[in-house]
Amino acid sequence: MALIVHKYGGTSMGSTERIRSVAQRVAKWARAGHQMVVVPSAMSGETNRLLALAKELMANASTPEALRELDAVAATGEQVSVGLLALALQAQGLQAVSYAGWQVPIHTDTAYTKARISSIDDQRVRADLAAGKVVVITGFQGLDPQGHVTTLGRGGSDTSAVAVAAALKADECLIYTDVDGVYTTDPRIVPEARRLTTISFEEMLEMASLGSKVLQIRSVEFAGKYRVPLRVLSSFTPWDIPIDEEAQSGTLITFEEDEKMEQAVVAGIAFNRDEAKISVIGVPDKPGIAHQILGPVAEANIDIDVIIQNVSHDGRTDFSFTVPRGDYARTMEVLKAKVQPAIGAAELRGDPKICKVSIVGIGMRSHVGVASKMFRTLSEEGINIQMISTSEIKTSVVIDEKYMELAVRALHKAFDLDQPATEEH
Amino acid sequence: MALIVHKYGGTSMGSTERIRSVAQRVAKWARAGHQMVVVPSAMSGETNRLLALAKELMANASTPEALRELDAVAATGEQVSVGLLALALQAQGLQAVSYAGWQVPIHTDTAYTKARISSIDDQRVRADLAAGKVVVITGFQGLDPQGHVTTLGRGGSDTSAVAVAAALKADECLIYTDVDGVYTTDPRIVPEARRLTTISFEEMLEMASLGSKVLQIRSVEFAGKYRVPLRVLSSFTPWDIPIDEEAQSGTLITFEEDEKMEQAVVAGIAFNRDEAKISVIGVPDKPGIAHQILGPVAEANIDIDVIIQNVSHDGRTDFSFTVPRGDYARTMEVLKAKVQPAIGAAELRGDPKICKVSIVGIGMRSHVGVASKMFRTLSEEGINIQMISTSEIKTSVVIDEKYMELAVRALHKAFDLDQPATEEH
Repeated sequence: MALIVHKYGGTSMGSTERIRSVAQRVAKWARAGHQMVVVPSAMSGETNRLLALAKELMANASTPEALRELDAVAATGEQVSVGLLALALQAQGLQAVSYAGWQVPIHTDTAYTKARISSIDDQRVRADLAAGKVVVITGFQGLDPQGHVTTLGRGGSDTSAVAVAAALKADECLIYTDVDGVYTTDPRIVPEARRLTTISFEEMLEMASLGSKVLQIRSVEFAGKYRVPLRVLSSFTPWDIPIDEEAQSGTLITFEEDEKMEQAVVAGIAFNRDEAKISVIGVPDKPGIAHQILGPVAEANIDIDVIIQNVSHDGRTDFSFTVPRGDYARTMEVLKAKVQPAIGAAELRGDPKICKVSIVGIGMRSHVGVASKMFRTLSEEGINIQMISTSEIKTSVVIDEKYMELAVRALHKAFDLDQPATEEH
Repeated sequence: MALIVHKYGGTSMGSTERIRSVAQRVAKWARAGHQMVVVPSAMSGETNRLLALAKELMANASTPEALRELDAVAATGEQVSVGLLALALQAQGLQAVSYAGWQVPIHTDTAYTKARISSIDDQRVRADLAAGKVVVITGFQGLDPQGHVTTLGRGGSDTSAVAVAAALKADECLIYTDVDGVYTTDPRIVPEARRLTTISFEEMLEMASLGSKVLQIRSVEFAGKYRVPLRVLSSFTPWDIPIDEEAQSGTLITFEEDEKMEQAVVAGIAFNRDEAKISVIGVPDKPGIAHQILGPVAEANIDIDVIIQNVSHDGRTDFSFTVPRGDYARTMEVLKAKVQPAIGAAELRGDPKICKVSIVGIGMRSHVGVASKMFRTLSEEGINIQMISTSEIKTSVVIDEKYMELAVRALHKAFDLDQPATEEH
């Protein structure tokens, strides 16, 4: 008997028919002898509907008082879900009870619309589990120290599920979603892309943040911090497939580095075409210049991703970085108005039509030549590399957007990702 | 400066446009210097939508566990309303904060779907009012001693508003609704029906329970118990009518009996055509017979209203009563199967086509001849009275359904209800 947490997304909860199917799946696990906690999202579309109503009454909610009300409204979507799912479980003949975040309680800070979980009181839930009940807990929300409802931001239900699993020291947290696991890259671009049966926590962080959006990144961080075994699997399999088969499906996110060392060097290829590149040319190479350039951009609330500073010639250097493509024009304006005159840069160059392609793999730490193999592969395809950025477990390049698919396919093949290299992969 | 509670029904909260209008009306009162608490219902249709979803997952929720989940789901409708209204108030430039029942908290018993308020903690609300905030509180719900969400049953938001007004010792509780007050009778039947500017608490109880459904009956009982001045008024007046005019509109439910004594004897004419009459003929007149007849009916969960037992002749009597028309056939079955054979009644007679017409007035207590004037009026119209039932402040007759309108009009005229008899009425 194990203590298992299931998390279901909004699509899985999208209709009463689907909620019934979720209940049947959970019942299968409960009847196999497991203690079950379920964290469902709001029914698909519900959170958007609620926020749209709020927006009609206040176009730009920004004060803490207004954000507090937004959270109170948005949190009701999950509160409906948990009650409905508990009813569906009871209709299956199980004992079930639902709790809103404030009832557990799930304690958070006071950062409305993007609160962070500080602690979870597990007493009430443990008592219910001991009494043989399935416990259904709202995702996405908690209670701040002053007794106000907070929400965790979009995708926060993943984080809720992992946090609940951590608090209960669950044996595994299963995230049911509309994909059947984590792939070596996007199968829409590389049909040979394979599902990974395991991926390390660090690789998952890099894959998620680089655009393979399977799990909310904060939930992966949380799982890493508390070492919660996390599995991403499909909610579209029939609910009555054998439990042993289901328990082995999807992708398991592991914390067992030693096992991984002998596996494939590169776990997957991530990519992102939502960025734009900006270069500030002919910058005086002196202390404080990076802050002078990027400070005004950050103040304008623009996220900066890759940053490159070249070696200098004659006391002058070039400084390049990428920003979200939607912020490209605004960034150029900020630079023209506040940066170029102040630092005396010769020129501003921008290119919104770029993309970032990354190879990710924990094995890169102990294997030399991985990056150079990446560069050689791209070179053989005639693809020019505009920027390079490296970390211990990933290497990213910025290239012309039009070469993205070609680059991803070539790299996927070069690193043998279409071959099940080891049993683990 | 006064402390005022406003209650708005689902129609008033039916769209963001209407919520904005509610906010403008509340803002008008707040700017006039009043401390304001607002209790809105769920947006119209929302509670039904939520309960329909629940019903799809469990057709007949009846266990405490299932009813608990029903309440958790249904309570979210008002939780959305309060957040949206608080935002709309903030958009008007006011300080506003919303609370769900559990946040106030409004304490109730554990009778899910029909809980009763036991107490209200006023500390949090008083602190907000003192800080100049408009406080928006969910109707319809509370928190039981175990920390579960409960609902008060249909129309419960009226009760919530009155209970909040009682706890805060508010100067007045204004119930905004889709009628502009309490009338001497239904204007659809008697075009000359007048709106009452005041009505006594006891009269209101009789009018409400007899079918003039303006306020939930429990809210009137609550107002009576705690002597909360209660005003029913229209939510369809423009929000920007002068506040003095609005404050005097509608119907005020009073507790000042002495003032009422000199007023019209009859306050209004109530009626109900949703009943059926059943007579058990030739019953042995001996102790326990009423229980033998009505016990099995009550056990079948059928509500009994008027009950008449005639004087006996030769040791036998006739026993008549009314039941909801929808339960007529079932009642006859119960009587045939369980009662008639057991007590040896000669005959069962039923008539589903009856109606009940009542005159209601606190002045009847000190005026003789009111009932006989009623009987004479009906007699002059050739209307046969089948049953008579009296209390201190009302007299009801059961007559053939086809004479209902005629009877109501004739009584309305006979008691001068189309004339403003005193200034107060």
